[in-house]
Amino acid sequence: MVLPVKGNMTVMIDEFIAAHLDESLQEVMALCRQPSVSARREGTRECADLVVALLARHGLEVSKFETAGNPIIVGRIAGRSARTLLCYNHYDVQPPEPLNLWQSPPFEPVIRDGALFARGSRDDKGELVARLAALAAVRHAHAGQLPCGVTFIVEGEEEIGSPHIAEFVLQHRDLLVCNGAIWEEGGIEPEGAPYISLGARGLLAVELSVSTMKTDAHSGRAHFLPSAAWRMVRALQSLKDDSERITIEGFQSRAIPPTALDLEYLAKLPDSLALDREIYGIEHYLNGRTSAEIRRAVFEPTCNIQGITTGYQGDGLKTVIPSKASAKLDFRLVPDQVPSECLELLRRHLDKHGFGDVNVMLLGAMHPAKTSSADPLVALAASAAQEVYAKSAVIYPMVGGSSPIYAFRGPLGGIPVINPGIGYWDNRAHAPNEHIRIADFSQAVRHIARIIDGFADIGAP
Amino acid sequence: MVLPVKGNMTVMIDEFIAAHLDESLQEVMALCRQPSVSARREGTRECADLVVALLARHGLEVSKFETAGNPIIVGRIAGRSARTLLCYNHYDVQPPEPLNLWQSPPFEPVIRDGALFARGSRDDKGELVARLAALAAVRHAHAGQLPCGVTFIVEGEEEIGSPHIAEFVLQHRDLLVCNGAIWEEGGIEPEGAPYISLGARGLLAVELSVSTMKTDAHSGRAHFLPSAAWRMVRALQSLKDDSERITIEGFQSRAIPPTALDLEYLAKLPDSLALDREIYGIEHYLNGRTSAEIRRAVFEPTCNIQGITTGYQGDGLKTVIPSKASAKLDFRLVPDQVPSECLELLRRHLDKHGFGDVNVMLLGAMHPAKTSSADPLVALAASAAQEVYAKSAVIYPMVGGSSPIYAFRGPLGGIPVINPGIGYWDNRAHAPNEHIRIADFSQAVRHIARIIDGFADIGAP
Repeated sequence: MVLPVKGNMTVMIDEFIAAHLDESLQEVMALCRQPSVSARREGTRECADLVVALLARHGLEVSKFETAGNPIIVGRIAGRSARTLLCYNHYDVQPPEPLNLWQSPPFEPVIRDGALFARGSRDDKGELVARLAALAAVRHAHAGQLPCGVTFIVEGEEEIGSPHIAEFVLQHRDLLVCNGAIWEEGGIEPEGAPYISLGARGLLAVELSVSTMKTDAHSGRAHFLPSAAWRMVRALQSLKDDSERITIEGFQSRAIPPTALDLEYLAKLPDSLALDREIYGIEHYLNGRTSAEIRRAVFEPTCNIQGITTGYQGDGLKTVIPSKASAKLDFRLVPDQVPSECLELLRRHLDKHGFGDVNVMLLGAMHPAKTSSADPLVALAASAAQEVYAKSAVIYPMVGGSSPIYAFRGPLGGIPVINPGIGYWDNRAHAPNEHIRIADFSQAVRHIARIIDGFADIGAP
Repeated sequence: MVLPVKGNMTVMIDEFIAAHLDESLQEVMALCRQPSVSARREGTRECADLVVALLARHGLEVSKFETAGNPIIVGRIAGRSARTLLCYNHYDVQPPEPLNLWQSPPFEPVIRDGALFARGSRDDKGELVARLAALAAVRHAHAGQLPCGVTFIVEGEEEIGSPHIAEFVLQHRDLLVCNGAIWEEGGIEPEGAPYISLGARGLLAVELSVSTMKTDAHSGRAHFLPSAAWRMVRALQSLKDDSERITIEGFQSRAIPPTALDLEYLAKLPDSLALDREIYGIEHYLNGRTSAEIRRAVFEPTCNIQGITTGYQGDGLKTVIPSKASAKLDFRLVPDQVPSECLELLRRHLDKHGFGDVNVMLLGAMHPAKTSSADPLVALAASAAQEVYAKSAVIYPMVGGSSPIYAFRGPLGGIPVINPGIGYWDNRAHAPNEHIRIADFSQAVRHIARIIDGFADIGAP
């Protein structure tokens, strides 16, 4: 008896979405018409006010919170059930430059060839509107009352590293209490199947630096003066063995291996070697790892050198012994590694290996965060995806990069976080000619609506 | 009977030098008044002509040879004996900038506080004139005929790396045939004793470079994309062990250890740890080596990193995997290492250790060159030093740097090369306020005169 009702419900939902598609696109265009470049605080306050009005128009109870940076907006709407779904979005955008590469002006949205072009159309104004459109459709199908509560949190500093969001979440846990969340953006793979990312690695970024002399010296003295360049090479070399394993004692002790279900999802992921060969011009993966091995390796921490600075870097030669050397590193961390602990282990490692003279400066840190592959929200998103896209969702138990998901997940009680969305592989987010395809937008709204529609039920005991 | 004659001879020599000191200083000032900045070919031709005239005025038979750069001048004068001493000098100077730091204009020579200030006064116009003054004194003492022949070779591109001198020497071996040589410049140690350098290490300078991808990549992919930064760190690490020993197979096979006499001279060298502590701010020498160990280590080749360039070097962090990395290296070589052979061994080493993707580009090469500590010319210079300075000469069997001495030594039959001269530790050569102290000049002329005076005798069977 459940299925026919559901079927009827989704027909109503989809019809409403289709009927209001133009309205939704107008909302995207209205937001995109307002520049909101956080990097230079251009139009961000005006855009925040547009978002306040938009959420209010959609029936949410809206609060605008001032921060030391741009305002954070929270909009809430209650549902029949006590369960609440949180949507995280942002209203700020990347600078549009270089302007000459845009086919139409970045802040004059235009629809052509079935796509909407504007800075922010994908990242992240279109995603925000898609969720509001889904919410409206579900509310309509349920005669005005949502089956679950929905809370939006929309910030204005995502493109500059979200300097205020973590503290805000900590301070407003009561306001943001929820049972699951939809992260900023999602979309489809080249084959047309939507992807679902369940986790992101953490980050520990540091700068190592060493000074061996007051001044650079003539290299004819290399047999007795200490070179900072060689000190740095040796310190770096001590961090990792030739099989890429980090050799810092205790570094991996908190690392949790993938579950059986994680491994199952990893095994189903598409082989991207052909694509990576094209993009990066590589023949093989690092150390000849197979595609299966690299998929599994996302559950291991990495130690990357971002850059090294030492000595003479101009043309020709300069017979000099460098007195100073520095290297920027980032470690990607897996659950349950803790950045501050890893920093301490790094320091201890350097001391123990005779590199007490190598300084370590913290550049940045993010915790890893991972939603269980077995979480019912994942199953809900996957079955909704099957229905809307007629394809199995591609589930990434973990992605290689890092994100501030942890800033929500931890304080809000370890909620599951997924990411349905409007994107595809060539949206040009952060680049000239950013756009969304209208068909993608429409499908994503239907996908998100099904998740909102089903969210109350997956919490039933 | 020999001693009294000698005594009489040196009295005549010293009296002549003293009597003509002002004249000599006028010659230095006349040369210094003529700018001759090879880096921008400013006044070099005019200065070459002044040198031609000066050598002719001193009774030498002069030839000026055009090169693709500045002219090379050769002046010859025969002696009673068939033995000939070669003097190598240059008439070009370093640019005088920054001009505002000069107390008097660089090309307006002036004598104040017992010193002659001008660009080129020390390096190398004063040295050239000192040798001519010594020659005049010896010739006068021997009633107009020198006991040995003297040949001057004066080039105009020393300050830009002597690009034409090696080829010139090869092409004019007949003209330059000699039994020993005096190198460009010399002088006294802080304690007032003259130093004699007998050798210089060779040089092999290369740039290693590696490219692992077509483009830099997001560091979230560090578990599967190859980093050029890590490739370079590992390639460098493979070149040397922790005790600074170069691990390139066969690299040291031609290295000749110091002789017993070399070791004796090395043991007598002043301990420079206190000075090096002050200059470089170091506590200890490299790897805690003792002063005795570092003196001995000048007979070992070195592998120095001049600089490393890879990845992001700006402020803050950038989560990027570098696709390109390069490192400039210089190896100092000892007799009888051959730069081209060492280059080939380096290539072979990289290939053998799995770094076939690391390119090696030659940046520069110089052969090592060393005069035997037991050569009679060394003993002559040392005993003349004792007489003039009333101090034992400090003999460096080898210095850590490199010089184009080899370009003369090899083609001219392995001649001994020494370097008496007018300098002291604070001449400011290459810097503002370059100067010579007149007392140093005068002593050096007396020292050089004794070497010219005795040079015929040390060749007697």
